[in-house]
Amino acid sequence: MPESLPASDRTRVVREAHRATYNREVIYKILDEAFVCHIGFAVEGQPFVIPTMFARIGDALYIHGSAASRMLRALAAGAPACVTVTLLDGLILARSIFNHSMNYRSVVALGHAMIIDDPAEKLRALQAFAEKLIPGRWNDVRQPNEKELKATHILKLPLTEVSAKVRTGGVEDDAEDYAFPVWAGVIPLRLAVDPPLRDDRCDASLPTPSYASNFPR
Amino acid sequence: MPESLPASDRTRVVREAHRATYNREVIYKILDEAFVCHIGFAVEGQPFVIPTMFARIGDALYIHGSAASRMLRALAAGAPACVTVTLLDGLILARSIFNHSMNYRSVVALGHAMIIDDPAEKLRALQAFAEKLIPGRWNDVRQPNEKELKATHILKLPLTEVSAKVRTGGVEDDAEDYAFPVWAGVIPLRLAVDPPLRDDRCDASLPTPSYASNFPR
Repeated sequence: MPESLPASDRTRVVREAHRATYNREVIYKILDEAFVCHIGFAVEGQPFVIPTMFARIGDALYIHGSAASRMLRALAAGAPACVTVTLLDGLILARSIFNHSMNYRSVVALGHAMIIDDPAEKLRALQAFAEKLIPGRWNDVRQPNEKELKATHILKLPLTEVSAKVRTGGVEDDAEDYAFPVWAGVIPLRLAVDPPLRDDRCDASLPTPSYASNFPR
Repeated sequence: MPESLPASDRTRVVREAHRATYNREVIYKILDEAFVCHIGFAVEGQPFVIPTMFARIGDALYIHGSAASRMLRALAAGAPACVTVTLLDGLILARSIFNHSMNYRSVVALGHAMIIDDPAEKLRALQAFAEKLIPGRWNDVRQPNEKELKATHILKLPLTEVSAKVRTGGVEDDAEDYAFPVWAGVIPLRLAVDPPLRDDRCDASLPTPSYASNFPR
């Protein structure tokens, strides 16, 4: 795959194009950091946007579907999809209301998802979900049995038509507003991890794994 | 407006229906806590999902559009929309891979957005955006002038067809897995606020407002 994805008419960033990037490394880093994606699809002309967990393996996203869901039925029937991932990094407090903004990193991927039937690929996707949540978890837990694997529906969306948009840095005010006497700056935001809470039914003799007590984010 | 919204065929939660709520108070609390929504719309059959800031006033969501954007053009032309908001509260580390999950609160709103032309309503929406970012900011900054207000495009989406889905609490394993000897529990996640960073061009004599030094979240 090339290092940068071509901007199609549909993925070219129209608004604030200087914030756009089509670089695969930048895009994949954003995807790998996010726990949740928002997947868009339409049913009888009505768009739905559903938050769901996902993982990336190589040049594809994997999504965990349910047979009962509108999403799986629509996507399996060939409906075009859009998967969007957003990370929020800060609030921009400018001197004018008009220039208030946010720092963020987002990715928009368009394409068609397909249902994965191959048990080995399904297993790889489940492993990728687990390792994305928390690296090291997969080897510690009870892995899927054949019945669970059969009941699991995995969708794959190849990453061919993708763009990212990133706002970073500080306040950008209009020249004439810099004299306005108000504090201006950035309030940084991040996803924070609090100490793990042991399940009531988890025997106290079982050690807390380092990946939980010392979360790697 | 009634306390609870009726579940339409389109907003009724199909998957894990016990996690669904149609209570307006619960729904509005989730909307008010989130900084970003994901708005879905289709252009020539292709869904797009775009992250954007928003605010709620009463029984409507307001979204800040740009005249140059696909989104504004599509929604203004009457395309049906879906606005989804997701808050991530924790990772559920179960004993089996299959029962790994996340704690979250999400809202899905369906409807049609309309462009707001009334300058007074546009101003109220801008004030709601500012006060959502950080209560108290609106009165401190240079408020919009007539030219800016004219250039601002605000979309309104009445909240008539809305549902929420909430997962809370701890691990839920299958009965036979509780004996599996692995640590299980919840890793709490939250949006954290770091100390504010003063803009390089902000005179050091201007005090940091308490809403920035002591962020109310």
